[in-house]
Amino acid sequence: MIIVLKPQATPEQVENLKGMIQEKKLNPVPFEGEERIVIHVLGDTREEYSKAWKALDFVENVVPILRPYKLSSKEHHALKTIVRVGDVKFGDTEFVVIAGPCSVESEEQIMRAANIIKGMGLKIMRASAFKPRTSPYSFQGLGIEGLKLLKQVREETGIMVETEIMDVRDVPIAADHVDILRVGARNMQNFDLLKEVGKVDCPVILKRGMSATVKEFIMAAEYILYNGNKNVILCERGIRTFETAYRNTLDICAVALLKQETHLPVIVDPSHAAGGRELVFPLSKAAIAAGADGLLVEMHPEPEKAFSDGDQSLYPEQLARLLKDVKRVCAAVDRSFG
Amino acid sequence: MIIVLKPQATPEQVENLKGMIQEKKLNPVPFEGEERIVIHVLGDTREEYSKAWKALDFVENVVPILRPYKLSSKEHHALKTIVRVGDVKFGDTEFVVIAGPCSVESEEQIMRAANIIKGMGLKIMRASAFKPRTSPYSFQGLGIEGLKLLKQVREETGIMVETEIMDVRDVPIAADHVDILRVGARNMQNFDLLKEVGKVDCPVILKRGMSATVKEFIMAAEYILYNGNKNVILCERGIRTFETAYRNTLDICAVALLKQETHLPVIVDPSHAAGGRELVFPLSKAAIAAGADGLLVEMHPEPEKAFSDGDQSLYPEQLARLLKDVKRVCAAVDRSFG
Amino acid sequence: MIIVLKPQATPEQVENLKGMIQEKKLNPVPFEGEERIVIHVLGDTREEYSKAWKALDFVENVVPILRPYKLSSKEHHALKTIVRVGDVKFGDTEFVVIAGPCSVESEEQIMRAANIIKGMGLKIMRASAFKPRTSPYSFQGLGIEGLKLLKQVREETGIMVETEIMDVRDVPIAADHVDILRVGARNMQNFDLLKEVGKVDCPVILKRGMSATVKEFIMAAEYILYNGNKNVILCERGIRTFETAYRNTLDICAVALLKQETHLPVIVDPSHAAGGRELVFPLSKAAIAAGADGLLVEMHPEPEKAFSDGDQSLYPEQLARLLKDVKRVCAAVDRSFG
Amino acid sequence: MIIVLKPQATPEQVENLKGMIQEKKLNPVPFEGEERIVIHVLGDTREEYSKAWKALDFVENVVPILRPYKLSSKEHHALKTIVRVGDVKFGDTEFVVIAGPCSVESEEQIMRAANIIKGMGLKIMRASAFKPRTSPYSFQGLGIEGLKLLKQVREETGIMVETEIMDVRDVPIAADHVDILRVGARNMQNFDLLKEVGKVDCPVILKRGMSATVKEFIMAAEYILYNGNKNVILCERGIRTFETAYRNTLDICAVALLKQETHLPVIVDPSHAAGGRELVFPLSKAAIAAGADGLLVEMHPEPEKAFSDGDQSLYPEQLARLLKDVKRVCAAVDRSFG
Repeated sequence: MIIVLKPQATPEQVENLKGMIQEKKLNPVPFEGEERIVIHVLGDTREEYSKAWKALDFVENVVPILRPYKLSSKEHHALKTIVRVGDVKFGDTEFVVIAGPCSVESEEQIMRAANIIKGMGLKIMRASAFKPRTSPYSFQGLGIEGLKLLKQVREETGIMVETEIMDVRDVPIAADHVDILRVGARNMQNFDLLKEVGKVDCPVILKRGMSATVKEFIMAAEYILYNGNKNVILCERGIRTFETAYRNTLDICAVALLKQETHLPVIVDPSHAAGGRELVFPLSKAAIAAGADGLLVEMHPEPEKAFSDGDQSLYPEQLARLLKDVKRVCAAVDRSFG
Repeated sequence: MIIVLKPQATPEQVENLKGMIQEKKLNPVPFEGEERIVIHVLGDTREEYSKAWKALDFVENVVPILRPYKLSSKEHHALKTIVRVGDVKFGDTEFVVIAGPCSVESEEQIMRAANIIKGMGLKIMRASAFKPRTSPYSFQGLGIEGLKLLKQVREETGIMVETEIMDVRDVPIAADHVDILRVGARNMQNFDLLKEVGKVDCPVILKRGMSATVKEFIMAAEYILYNGNKNVILCERGIRTFETAYRNTLDICAVALLKQETHLPVIVDPSHAAGGRELVFPLSKAAIAAGADGLLVEMHPEPEKAFSDGDQSLYPEQLARLLKDVKRVCAAVDRSFG
Repeated sequence: MIIVLKPQATPEQVENLKGMIQEKKLNPVPFEGEERIVIHVLGDTREEYSKAWKALDFVENVVPILRPYKLSSKEHHALKTIVRVGDVKFGDTEFVVIAGPCSVESEEQIMRAANIIKGMGLKIMRASAFKPRTSPYSFQGLGIEGLKLLKQVREETGIMVETEIMDVRDVPIAADHVDILRVGARNMQNFDLLKEVGKVDCPVILKRGMSATVKEFIMAAEYILYNGNKNVILCERGIRTFETAYRNTLDICAVALLKQETHLPVIVDPSHAAGGRELVFPLSKAAIAAGADGLLVEMHPEPEKAFSDGDQSLYPEQLARLLKDVKRVCAAVDRSFG
Repeated sequence: MIIVLKPQATPEQVENLKGMIQEKKLNPVPFEGEERIVIHVLGDTREEYSKAWKALDFVENVVPILRPYKLSSKEHHALKTIVRVGDVKFGDTEFVVIAGPCSVESEEQIMRAANIIKGMGLKIMRASAFKPRTSPYSFQGLGIEGLKLLKQVREETGIMVETEIMDVRDVPIAADHVDILRVGARNMQNFDLLKEVGKVDCPVILKRGMSATVKEFIMAAEYILYNGNKNVILCERGIRTFETAYRNTLDICAVALLKQETHLPVIVDPSHAAGGRELVFPLSKAAIAAGADGLLVEMHPEPEKAFSDGDQSLYPEQLARLLKDVKRVCAAVDRSFG
């Protein structure tokens, strides 16, 4: 960490600051430039110190040199993490497609969806029992009832299931009913939830908040890892920008950067980025080409009757077509699929 | 709601859509323009329908005509809401300043802060017992212990206290220990938390999410109102933009718009927008001039020793100076203060 | 166009507005909903009317139904535009890679770059003679001298050249010296420049402004087409968002949407989006997979000595490697390359 | 400037980099931290070097320590700049309001506007002869004819005039016809235009680009100052964010920061931020309270007949009301008005 002092900083102030740094058991080494004094802080610095030091009137800026994340970082953990869910491996050479409806709506709907997916050779279905909805007047999900339907799907079809978890109190029961928990974009910085999913023995898909920086995203993963759960899969799903022509702006740079910076698997949700089903095709192909390890795609047996996200859900035949495209692009970037 | 069809929509498709609309007990009235057919949907439309209809291949767009919020809207509730906390009234002609440290750090620190505030004639102190921190390695707050210290402050000084609540499980105890609950920016769309604070009998300050639209912000308030708690105070605290010269961009337009659209009190947190204490002065004055009903300001007895947000916390003497400025600007816009 | 009136609009106001609409030779057709009156405006409406009507106190909103662009729109011009530059075709099944240094720096540098590119089988080199620089203290380009060097390159190597044009006064001479003119991101809404390049007989690459919406981007192309130049190539180069981990956020959704909405060729500049050379590889592959018609890539014989953009310029051997990747991904999406 | 090396940087690479730095006549001083080597670069560093150094594979990051602007900076020029236009002073204790229509539409309209403004005691009118319009089908302004009308207004009413300049070729004639030139938001980084207005002897209002950072904004002012024109007035007019409830987000933090960082006058355009006339009132008051030196407000004799921006133009009686508010808030922050 580097502390840049203002031009008018006095020798007393410099000494004072050195004392404060030493109190934290860190080593301050001043460096006099031509227009500014700069103090290097050696040791295990943490971001929280930076604000206290920046609080001083004679400090101009505090510049971190090291990354704030450790457990997620490739620098500290060179081997890539492979998250296993049944016989599926995330983060290895195989490419994984998770598909399914936005919500669990009924036994009939979810069984139909599972059988469609199974028929296409996929092994994991997405479907939310709990729904974060902008409006209190919108369908809020079937809740625990939905979890039970998902468990039933697993038992009857052999398809594994992935679902969103929103409330800390529901983590244990959800972990018991499904194969993968998902922390949604709106909860990426719900730190109590991150801590709870960090304590269970169930893989977690962590979606990027719609205005979270890549650094904040990795720090959210760090919370889960730090609490003991090593099976974290990162999911880019589009960020909020000024553009309104689509629901979100898929941040393909982030996919590539996350693969560079962390050892965790990275998947892409093209459906929430697109907000319309035509764009799901090009975004899915772009995700593979950019190095993603998998996709999380919305498919509904009858999108025009969906309780939520019907406009961005693929028709079953569209999913079949998408999978053919996926296979071809995977081959071009040395990934196996299907 | 208006549904715009694509140029190639067939009469059968139009009939089909009309049937779907009628199934929801709504009334479809087609209108043939020169290049497009448009269908007006009459009745109590909800946003969730729009996605199912937009899911149809022959639909180009679905345009809502009415606002999605009701309980929060001035259109449906013309009288302004005045939230009473002890003898303080939010949303009336008086202007309210809440000040205090970012976090509860120790008994000594929080008692000192309370006495400083009391000495300046303020009646409510802010201080967080639970801290949402980007890093798991940062100070996470004193938790329940912090709540107890806040209760002690109330009893010993008579100062009322406001604190952040993050975990649904802590809502009852927090409501019992403090005078105002705060839902932080990161939890603005933690819908389970909104529901829980909607069920207790304690005023709530709801902070705008850092990338929440004004509409989403009002919808979050709607969740609390809908669950039964009518004492909601909205708080603008800066949004995330491309600009990095300050922590967030204070959205003064939103303050004015919220006053136009809703009947709820609106306050401003200049500290989190600024991210540095020099900017707190101009932002506070701008907030008053734009029509805000109050301020939520960070002040710490010794900012350079603060466990969090030291850089943006005012020194006690700065708060005293700010209050003088507040008084003058209030007078210029017909608000009373102090 | 639809005009939504406020609930309190009076019959006199409605009549008054109908008169104003008829004055513009348009046909107003009122529609009474349950809570609002809506007026449909039939005829060739233009966006400028919307603001005058929105200016009325009893108007709540004005909603356009039709797209504002015509000449660029696939709806009005179904055949895709193929822009020919020598024997290279943009917008056809072949995929085109333009590569070269950020700036023309010297005769030696630019001849070296051209020969490297030629050796790899590429046919068009990028290189700027005029440089838009954030700082007046930075290298501003060689100007006319640079244009002459580019002409010399064409004559000596047979490589075609593409360069940025910033000043309306330089358009004729630039069009005479190079094969493709480029309008940079900062000038996307320099309307006088758009008009001038619309009048010359030289293909134009139009880069998206860093905070331009897709609609504004298409409208900028519309200016060039409207002024007579039909050879417009759109170039997505990343947009400005809150994320600072890379220079810009490549908007891959925009690439796909532009291909859906317009008949113009769409290429991608991965270098300016990335701001660092490692990201150029995944972004380039993603662009192809998403349906782009070509790439505009920065390559410098010696990046660490470049006068500008050295960090995002590929080394020659990296470009060679990129081209191999390009070829493979092209094959997976039915494009030919090399 | 500080160059942070990657952990694996070799001694040879360090020596190599030191040589490159010395070639630029700068002094490299390495500093060995615990996990990284850092090189301090002493001397007159420029941002352009940073990219070349960042281009090196063993460099992790380049961090500037000093600000990139000089002529605009308070650090280098402590006295505040007062821009005089006739007997009006921008940047002094007096507060200045410029008002007028978006565009010059006709002799009758512009004379009416000027007389209204004069009647209210204002001295400077805004009105654009050249119009940057998103659509080529919209009214593009009267051009030179409009400039002549503005000159006529000056002569007949004594009101001074301010107008936008878009095309470098029009700078001399515009400087001859009006009292203040305006560089619009879309041209903030039209560097050729900045250079041209830097060469004339006429005050310039420079509007912030809609996605320009404060640093880029100051650098644009630096271009004008560097080319010789010291009479630059900065104008904040709202930035582009994700929020669509208003036209732009007025960045009140920027107003305060610009006053801290530069010695130039700073004014605010509330009309373009608001995009609707009701918001002009609170935004104007907020601007004064935040420390702005003046306002640039749109007023039209008949907004509903305006050729452009009618929705955000005040009615004459609204402007009169606004000026009363302005006077009161000015008094509360020790500014004189009227």
